[in-house]
Amino acid sequence: MQLSHRIEHLTGGGSDGWDVYHRARDLIAAGEKVVELTIGEHDIRTDPAILKAMDDSARGGHTGYAEVPGVAALRDRVADRVQACSGVPTTRDNVLITPGGQAGLFSAHCATCDPGDAALFIDPYYVTYPGTIRGAGARPVPVRTRPGDSFRPRAADIAAAIVPGAKSLLINTPNNPTGALYDRATLEGIAQVCRDADLWLISDEVYDTQVWEGAHLSPRALPGMAERTLVIGSMSKSHAMTGSRCGWIVGPEAAIGDLINLATHTTYGVPGFVQDAALFALDQGAELEAAVAAPFRRRRAQALEILAGQNALHALPPQGAMYLMLDIRPTGMSGSEFANALLDAHRIAVMPGESFGAAAAGHIRVAMTIADDAFAAALKTLCAFAATRV
Amino acid sequence: MQLSHRIEHLTGGGSDGWDVYHRARDLIAAGEKVVELTIGEHDIRTDPAILKAMDDSARGGHTGYAEVPGVAALRDRVADRVQACSGVPTTRDNVLITPGGQAGLFSAHCATCDPGDAALFIDPYYVTYPGTIRGAGARPVPVRTRPGDSFRPRAADIAAAIVPGAKSLLINTPNNPTGALYDRATLEGIAQVCRDADLWLISDEVYDTQVWEGAHLSPRALPGMAERTLVIGSMSKSHAMTGSRCGWIVGPEAAIGDLINLATHTTYGVPGFVQDAALFALDQGAELEAAVAAPFRRRRAQALEILAGQNALHALPPQGAMYLMLDIRPTGMSGSEFANALLDAHRIAVMPGESFGAAAAGHIRVAMTIADDAFAAALKTLCAFAATRV
Ligand SMILES: Cc1ncc(COP(=O)(O)O)c(C=O)c1O
Ligand SMILES: Cc1ncc(COP(=O)(O)O)c(C=O)c1O
Repeated sequence: MQLSHRIEHLTGGGSDGWDVYHRARDLIAAGEKVVELTIGEHDIRTDPAILKAMDDSARGGHTGYAEVPGVAALRDRVADRVQACSGVPTTRDNVLITPGGQAGLFSAHCATCDPGDAALFIDPYYVTYPGTIRGAGARPVPVRTRPGDSFRPRAADIAAAIVPGAKSLLINTPNNPTGALYDRATLEGIAQVCRDADLWLISDEVYDTQVWEGAHLSPRALPGMAERTLVIGSMSKSHAMTGSRCGWIVGPEAAIGDLINLATHTTYGVPGFVQDAALFALDQGAELEAAVAAPFRRRRAQALEILAGQNALHALPPQGAMYLMLDIRPTGMSGSEFANALLDAHRIAVMPGESFGAAAAGHIRVAMTIADDAFAAALKTLCAFAATRV
Repeated sequence: MQLSHRIEHLTGGGSDGWDVYHRARDLIAAGEKVVELTIGEHDIRTDPAILKAMDDSARGGHTGYAEVPGVAALRDRVADRVQACSGVPTTRDNVLITPGGQAGLFSAHCATCDPGDAALFIDPYYVTYPGTIRGAGARPVPVRTRPGDSFRPRAADIAAAIVPGAKSLLINTPNNPTGALYDRATLEGIAQVCRDADLWLISDEVYDTQVWEGAHLSPRALPGMAERTLVIGSMSKSHAMTGSRCGWIVGPEAAIGDLINLATHTTYGVPGFVQDAALFALDQGAELEAAVAAPFRRRRAQALEILAGQNALHALPPQGAMYLMLDIRPTGMSGSEFANALLDAHRIAVMPGESFGAAAAGHIRVAMTIADDAFAAALKTLCAFAATRV
């Protein structure tokens, strides 16, 4: 039976460097020991206090359909949080609770693009981005950034990428995979292009609590941007709640109203007990967020020290998020060649830059998601391996 | 800022009879006592044993990203369940776990229809159906059934409704709102049309454990249908787990493979602890399902007795699901007029048939979702009220 063109062509052909990832999985399944540095997920679990709040809520009877827009208290709490870090007046009417940041990304594209419209996004990118845009029926248009700019986009490059039918631009700061944090000038350039070309800005801020240098700035805070920005947030990274599937979209009231209607027809809300757990977690304040971010902050410091003691690899010191982007061009290998060779030689799995777009060619992404000692040892081995190849 | 045409036109204009529902809500919010017979949700909560299984799973560490297709053991369990009731060989590769039946309905339409394609559905229908189809970018095409056929569709009516670009037909048995259970002849007629016109059949079977007369038959079991049927299932109604948002799609392996890819880009899986709770619940077997269905079975019996003692209203004895469809045409009122007048006179809220499509005009839907005594009393009042209007 014929399936839709949309679903059959959701993700492009070609391996895009994911063969390394699958090879590593297969080796592990076959019983081999592989050091896994591919995964964007904490090595800790959700805090038991949060799980207790979830259990209390469920046993307390919050097991029926929750309101589709989200539990009012959680919407209020998210509004406060977003207002506090952006200065933009925000109420529950600006907030839709979603089953995870990914669902927010998908819905935001459905809300801004009609089938056939174009949706811009910054390359390198989180792997689901092009498929998310295609899933919404739109055409993904990458905007390439440059390693020399620390992968921050130039306004002129975005403007040049605009095609007829372009409706939205998707950005991500702090950035996966590059670790870049967009500074005010970068965001002002982005905002200017969006206003000039009448684009929606979809701002993926799921790593907003993992900032190692400088401060996170939401583009929603810039002049004239609150009315054209949809912020995507999530409990996944900030509170080690990846499995709970709880996130949000913050945007103009009219857009949120329509997004609630869409949610009624796509997911029908988020479990009430999960929302109550998220509310409890947010109520713990910055301390819990800092504790969840701490291991990545430590490993980043370790990494910078290790990288300072070698010269085979160029590192881009991550300013945020849980990844390290390494420039392996001195080895003359592609990201995929390097990652495969490293897996063969040392059973260390990293992601080739190509998996995150053409702009990340000649790079590898190292997730800082294993215990400090093992992480340091693996990074040293990786550097020594690179040194034999330059 | 302009939103997409798709999202702005997701649901049609007009009140469609929902004003009664909102009036009832407003009265309740204002402190009035209203007997609520509009809601499709159990008056019991999720069994504490299921919630304990969820807590055990979460505290046991199942808090990270779960596999997007679903936890293997749950997929196996769902495959067994579907195989047992259909006789069709089914494995985990035929199963995608979704965050609720609604997400399954949406994804199934994305998988079968491209933007602009037509998707047929049976009228009367569950309220989200047309918006779900529009959300997937397709055109909803209703196929009207007749009260005299107990709202079971005729194959000829379906065939006549097929338009160019038609890709799928959505049916629901046991049916919300009509309580109809499709018999073998009806399903064979439907299957024939699907095979002849090369349509996908999307079979919403979320009420499959609430059968009061006869037996539930899945059209996937009919010759040549497994390859063109996507079954939508859910824990919501069978296990009083509406708030847990856990359901599934069962279909051909290739379709499920593509649907998993779509899920990666729309929802990114279902919480592992929710899936473990669902697995525990399914492992309790038919006894728990019967216990969850029992109140509706009891109230249906009450209703038939009450209705037998009057002659103002014609009842369609529900064969399944948690609703009672009453033919109020003898009163000369529309469903909306009747429901509004009943709310005014007796503070009893029911849904006008019109809310579920043109085919249900002249009817009201009474949800059997309040305590037995209160339900019987309300139904008696309703009948007495109708008698004053004939
Ligand atoms: C940049 C980015 N956005 C969104 C997500 C999705 O997060 P979730 O759906 O768990 O909230 C991720 C997850 O890795 C990510 O890296
Ligand atoms: C016919 C029908 N299908 C699907 C659903 C959606 O159920 P859920 O998303 O809770 O699984 C409902 C809920 O009322 C329904 O009545």
